[in-house]
Amino acid sequence: MARLVLKFGGTSVGTVERIQNVARRVKAVVDAGNEVAVVVSAMSGETNKLVGFCREIAPLHDAREYDAVVASGEQVTAGLLSMALQELGVSARSWLGWQIPLETDGAHGAARIMGIDTAEIERRMKEGQVAVVAGFQGIGPDRRIATLGRGGSDTSAVALAAAMKADRCDIYTDVDGVYTTDPRIVERARKLDRITYEEMLEMASVGAKVLQIRSVEMAMKHRVRVQVLSSFEDKPGTLVVDEDEIVEQELISGIAYSRDEAKVTVVKVSDRPGVAAAVFGPLADANVNVDMIVQNVSDDGSTTDVTFTVGKSDLALAQKVLDDHRAAIGFESIHADGNVAKISVIGVGMRSHAGIARLMFETLAQKGINIQVISTSEIKISVLVAAEYTELAVRALHTAYGLDSAA
Amino acid sequence: MARLVLKFGGTSVGTVERIQNVARRVKAVVDAGNEVAVVVSAMSGETNKLVGFCREIAPLHDAREYDAVVASGEQVTAGLLSMALQELGVSARSWLGWQIPLETDGAHGAARIMGIDTAEIERRMKEGQVAVVAGFQGIGPDRRIATLGRGGSDTSAVALAAAMKADRCDIYTDVDGVYTTDPRIVERARKLDRITYEEMLEMASVGAKVLQIRSVEMAMKHRVRVQVLSSFEDKPGTLVVDEDEIVEQELISGIAYSRDEAKVTVVKVSDRPGVAAAVFGPLADANVNVDMIVQNVSDDGSTTDVTFTVGKSDLALAQKVLDDHRAAIGFESIHADGNVAKISVIGVGMRSHAGIARLMFETLAQKGINIQVISTSEIKISVLVAAEYTELAVRALHTAYGLDSAA
Repeated sequence: MARLVLKFGGTSVGTVERIQNVARRVKAVVDAGNEVAVVVSAMSGETNKLVGFCREIAPLHDAREYDAVVASGEQVTAGLLSMALQELGVSARSWLGWQIPLETDGAHGAARIMGIDTAEIERRMKEGQVAVVAGFQGIGPDRRIATLGRGGSDTSAVALAAAMKADRCDIYTDVDGVYTTDPRIVERARKLDRITYEEMLEMASVGAKVLQIRSVEMAMKHRVRVQVLSSFEDKPGTLVVDEDEIVEQELISGIAYSRDEAKVTVVKVSDRPGVAAAVFGPLADANVNVDMIVQNVSDDGSTTDVTFTVGKSDLALAQKVLDDHRAAIGFESIHADGNVAKISVIGVGMRSHAGIARLMFETLAQKGINIQVISTSEIKISVLVAAEYTELAVRALHTAYGLDSAA
Repeated sequence: MARLVLKFGGTSVGTVERIQNVARRVKAVVDAGNEVAVVVSAMSGETNKLVGFCREIAPLHDAREYDAVVASGEQVTAGLLSMALQELGVSARSWLGWQIPLETDGAHGAARIMGIDTAEIERRMKEGQVAVVAGFQGIGPDRRIATLGRGGSDTSAVALAAAMKADRCDIYTDVDGVYTTDPRIVERARKLDRITYEEMLEMASVGAKVLQIRSVEMAMKHRVRVQVLSSFEDKPGTLVVDEDEIVEQELISGIAYSRDEAKVTVVKVSDRPGVAAAVFGPLADANVNVDMIVQNVSDDGSTTDVTFTVGKSDLALAQKVLDDHRAAIGFESIHADGNVAKISVIGVGMRSHAGIARLMFETLAQKGINIQVISTSEIKISVLVAAEYTELAVRALHTAYGLDSAA
């Protein structure tokens, strides 16, 4: 017997039939003798509809009222799934954020979970009742509904699993696991049986949109074992776990890419102490998230070029901020390029192995792909290339690192 | 300055544009210097959609989960209207049943209001904030959402008005007031400026579906002045008030009708003490609501015919119940007739005037309409006639009692 938290996303509960299907899956887990809590998202499309109403009424709407409106979607699913479970003879009860309570901070619309009182839910689980928890929502210090921000249901599930010391948190979604890379680009991409939290974080943040980053961070912090699996097929998914749990660690776990990148080059900044702060301080103040950063000393030694990447949606804002601070920073011009992609090789194995980066650079060179920017972390090497090379680069690297599945 | 509760029904908040329109109307009332609370229904169609989901999943669904699901509709409207008010510069805050709290009993799906703590709402109203209250919902002793049953938002509004001692409760709806009779039948029906609670109860219960009966009963009990008015036009509606407030009481306020009637005659019941109990006891046990009752002694003096009316939807059940108890009751046969209508003449003025009933009987006789059953109360005379005479009877009575508007 294990204690499990199961989470079902919007497409998995998108219709009454699918909710009934989810109920059958939950029943099977209950019948196997497990203690079960389920976290649900809103039926697919509902949250977008509600957000649309809010935007239509007030572009700058009150976050408390926004939360009251959009949290209703998960409320509906939680009630309906409870009914569907009861209809199958499974004892079940829905729980809204304020009922548990799942306490958050006061940042309405993007609240952080401060604590979850699971005593009553655990008591009922021990008696065989399934707790059906509305994801994405909690209650703030102002005793008003607070939502966790988009994708928050994953975070709800992991936080609940941590609070009730669950043996595993199963995230049911519309993909059957985490792949070595995007199967739409590389036909021979392989589903990973296991991946470490750290790798998963890198995979998620560079575009493999399987799990919300926040939920992975939380899982890592509280050592919650997470499984990503399909709600439409009945087979194991990918386990996201601590490095210790992975016996045969592969060198490289995956190749990720992101097209949501834009490159900005600040040309001929005077090369003096504090110039980085002068450039990036105003960007931070404007909430522009800067990712890769490269600084080159120019020929004459008195000026330097600073290159960095931002999300595509932030490009215009970044340019404006720099223009506004031109006098303070002191530069010749700004070059912006939205036509770039970031390609990353990810694996905790690279910590103890040399030559990982060289293989990446050689492979790209062989294909005639020019590297514009490089950045590295302990478990990741990322390069910026022209967007048109994205698929070619991903495929070449997938093969070079031996990730292709047997044909 | 007055303290007002305004209630807007589903069609009045059926789209974002209509919600914005409601916000403008509320703003006008606020700008006139009033303290305002608003009670809202779900956007039209939403509750039916949610109820449909519940029925699809489980015909006999858990009432607690049903409440959690369907209460979400009012939650959405309350949040959206608060935003729309804020967008117009009006301070506003939404309130769900559990937040107020509006305490109910444990009868989920048809809960009764036990108490409303309006302290915080009143404090904010005094500071100029509009309370936007989700109608139809409260919180039960089990700390779960409890809904008040269909049309419950009217009841929420009146109860809130009573709790905060509001000067008036304005029910905005898709009609502009209470009429002397159905304008679809009588072109010259007149809108009433005022009507008493008692009359309104009779009008509502016999088919003039303007206000929920429960809300009128509550208004009468707590002496809440209620106004029924149109949310689409800007003119006064009908005031539902205590008799004392009506200076020039008209003899008759209106002619009501109901086609939702069926007549049952139990033929040749042995005429003995306790026979009425034998007939109506089992019907009551089966929750069949019996309305008019007539008992005639038959020619031979030893048997009697008992005739009564029930709602059309209860007719089959009523017949079955009587058949099941045939031995205990002792009767020859049962005649059922679903092809009848109840026509009622209503007015508190009839208490002090003779001849009201005679005018009714004479008028119907002149038109050749046969009266099948008669029942009377202090302020109402009802007759059962063949359904085909409904319009003819209503028109003739409307003219006979001088209710026709000037042409």
